[in-house]
Amino acid sequence: MPSIKDVARKAGVGIATVSRVINNSGYVKQSTREKIEKVIQEIGYVPNEIARSMLKQKNNIVAFIIPNSTHLFFGELLYHVELELFKYGYKLMVCNSSESMEKELEYLDMLKNNRVDAIILLTNNDIEQYLNKDLPLISFDRKFKDVPFVASDNYQGGILAAKKLIDLGCDHLMFIGDDAQGDSTPVQTEVTKRRLGFMSYAKEHHHSEVINIEYPLGNYINIPEQVHKTVLEHPEVDGIFAISDAVACEVILNLEKHGKRVPEDVKVIGFDGGRSFLNLGKKMTSISQSPEQIAHAIAESIHSFYANEKVENKIIPVTLTNGETA
Amino acid sequence: MPSIKDVARKAGVGIATVSRVINNSGYVKQSTREKIEKVIQEIGYVPNEIARSMLKQKNNIVAFIIPNSTHLFFGELLYHVELELFKYGYKLMVCNSSESMEKELEYLDMLKNNRVDAIILLTNNDIEQYLNKDLPLISFDRKFKDVPFVASDNYQGGILAAKKLIDLGCDHLMFIGDDAQGDSTPVQTEVTKRRLGFMSYAKEHHHSEVINIEYPLGNYINIPEQVHKTVLEHPEVDGIFAISDAVACEVILNLEKHGKRVPEDVKVIGFDGGRSFLNLGKKMTSISQSPEQIAHAIAESIHSFYANEKVENKIIPVTLTNGETA
Repeated sequence: MPSIKDVARKAGVGIATVSRVINNSGYVKQSTREKIEKVIQEIGYVPNEIARSMLKQKNNIVAFIIPNSTHLFFGELLYHVELELFKYGYKLMVCNSSESMEKELEYLDMLKNNRVDAIILLTNNDIEQYLNKDLPLISFDRKFKDVPFVASDNYQGGILAAKKLIDLGCDHLMFIGDDAQGDSTPVQTEVTKRRLGFMSYAKEHHHSEVINIEYPLGNYINIPEQVHKTVLEHPEVDGIFAISDAVACEVILNLEKHGKRVPEDVKVIGFDGGRSFLNLGKKMTSISQSPEQIAHAIAESIHSFYANEKVENKIIPVTLTNGETA
Repeated sequence: MPSIKDVARKAGVGIATVSRVINNSGYVKQSTREKIEKVIQEIGYVPNEIARSMLKQKNNIVAFIIPNSTHLFFGELLYHVELELFKYGYKLMVCNSSESMEKELEYLDMLKNNRVDAIILLTNNDIEQYLNKDLPLISFDRKFKDVPFVASDNYQGGILAAKKLIDLGCDHLMFIGDDAQGDSTPVQTEVTKRRLGFMSYAKEHHHSEVINIEYPLGNYINIPEQVHKTVLEHPEVDGIFAISDAVACEVILNLEKHGKRVPEDVKVIGFDGGRSFLNLGKKMTSISQSPEQIAHAIAESIHSFYANEKVENKIIPVTLTNGETA
C-alpha cells in the first residue's frame, strides 16, 4: 500500500506539505496542491489516521526575521507590522538574525513544522536554497524567485536624492553604501536600486563621475573607520547620498569633526525618513520610506495567503523629506 | 466519581491549572501544586485520558508585553530580551500594548491557555486583578503582589541625578515625570522611585523646594505642550531631571527655542542612558539603565520557573553617564 512518503517523493515535496494537503490545513501553493492531489490519485494513496494526526491547526503566529530591531527604521517597521498583523488576528514573533544565518534557518524550520503560519524575511543572507517556497513567505526589500515581496521604491529614492543634490548645485557627488548592495557580491537586494537610481540620474544630469564607496555591511548600525578616511580623501566632494540615515549621521558627524560644514560645504542626504530619537541637533534631509504602508502591505499579503487570494508584489512609494543637511 | 472540575473548584483554581499538575506539564507555583495534590488525594480523583489529552506541551514561546517598541529604551530592551531568551531556547512574541489594556488581556489569556510559556509584563495599566499568579509572569519596573520582578535601581538613579545637579551648583531644581509615576494615581510603578530618590536627596542637600511637574502619560513618546509652558513659567529653574531621555530631549529643544542655553543656563539630566539614534547635536547627560543586564535577569527568571528554582526579584544597578547637557 502506498504511503505518505511515496506521495511526497513522487510529487517532489516534503511529507509536511503532503500532510497539509490531505488535511486541508495550512497554506500550500495552488500549483503544488494540484500536483500532490494528482499523485495521490495516480498511486491510490489513502491517508491514514497517523497521517491525519500530523495535522497541526493554524496557530496565527507570524515570525519576522529582521537583522536588528534596534536599527531605527527596522524597529519602526517591527512596531507597525505587529499592529497591522494584530488586526488580522496574528501574533508576531521576532527574530533578530543580524549576521546569524543559523538563527534564520531555525525559524524557517518552525514554518516547515507548522509552528508558525508565515515568515516575513528581511535578510541579506544567502538563504535562497533553504526556502520552502510552497509555504507562506513574504520578503521585504529583496527578491527571491517565487517569493512575493514588498519593497520601497528604492530606485525612485535614488533619483530623488541625485536630483536634489544636483539642483542644489553640487559639483562632485559621492554614494556610500554597504556591500550587501554591491556590484560584486553574491546577494543583491532591492536596496541596490538606491545606488542604481542615483547613478542613473547623475549620469544623465551631471558632468562628473560619481564616487562609489562600498563597505562591509557588519551589524547595520556602525560603519567602518575606513569609510570616513575615504570621504576625507575626497575633499572635492560636495554632495553625498548615503544608503541609510544611520550612515548619513555618522558621515556628517565625522565631516564636522574635521572642519567641514554641513550643508554649507557638503550636502548630505540619508535614506529612511530622517526620523530620529533624541536628536539635539539639525534635522536630517532624507528619502522617506513609510513603515506604516510597508507594514500594511505585508500584513495584507499574509492574509491573502490564507484567504486563497493571489499574493501580489507591492512597491511602496518614497518621498523626499527636507531637513537641514542638504 | 469526582471530576477535574471538582478538584478545580475545591482547590480554588482553574481547570487548566489542575490539568498542568496532573500532567506534570507547564509551570504551577509550588504552593498551588501542593494544594491541588492534597485535594486530589482528599476527594479520590483519578485523572482520565480526556484530562490528559488537555495537556499541551511546553512550546518555548515567551510573550513580551511592552508599551511601545519604538521607544528607544524599550526597543533596546526588546532586542536584548530576544537574544537572551534565544540562548535558553525560547522564541519571543511581542505585544505593543501602548494604551490598550484589551490587547494585554488577550496575551494573558494565551498564557492561561498554554499557548505561551511565560509573559514579561512592562505595563502601567491597572491589570493586577487579571493576573493568574500561579502562572509564569515576570514584571519589569513594577511590583505586583506575588509576581517576581526585575527593576533598575530607580531610587539610586534619582539620587545620582540630584547629586549631580546640586554639585554643579544648581539653585532651583525641577522634576518632570508622567502621572503613571504620580503621587495621586491608582497605579504606581517602580519608576516612581526616580522621583522619590531625587526628592529625598534634594531635601537633605538643597535649600529650596523642588518643583514637581506631572503630566498625563499618553503614548510614552511625546509630552503635552502644557509641560513646556510650565517649564517656561519658571525661569528661575536651572536644573531639571526628566523621567526619561525622550522627555529630556523635548524639554531641551524647547528651552533652546526660547533662548535658554543648555547647559549654561539650565542643566538637564535624562534617564535611560543618553543613547541616541541619529543625534546630530550634543550628547545627553543621563542616568543609564543597562538593557543587557535587565534582559539577562529576565531570561534567567523565566528559566528558573521551569527549572523549578526559586525566582528571585532582581534590582539592576544604574550609573550616571556624563554628556553635554549637565
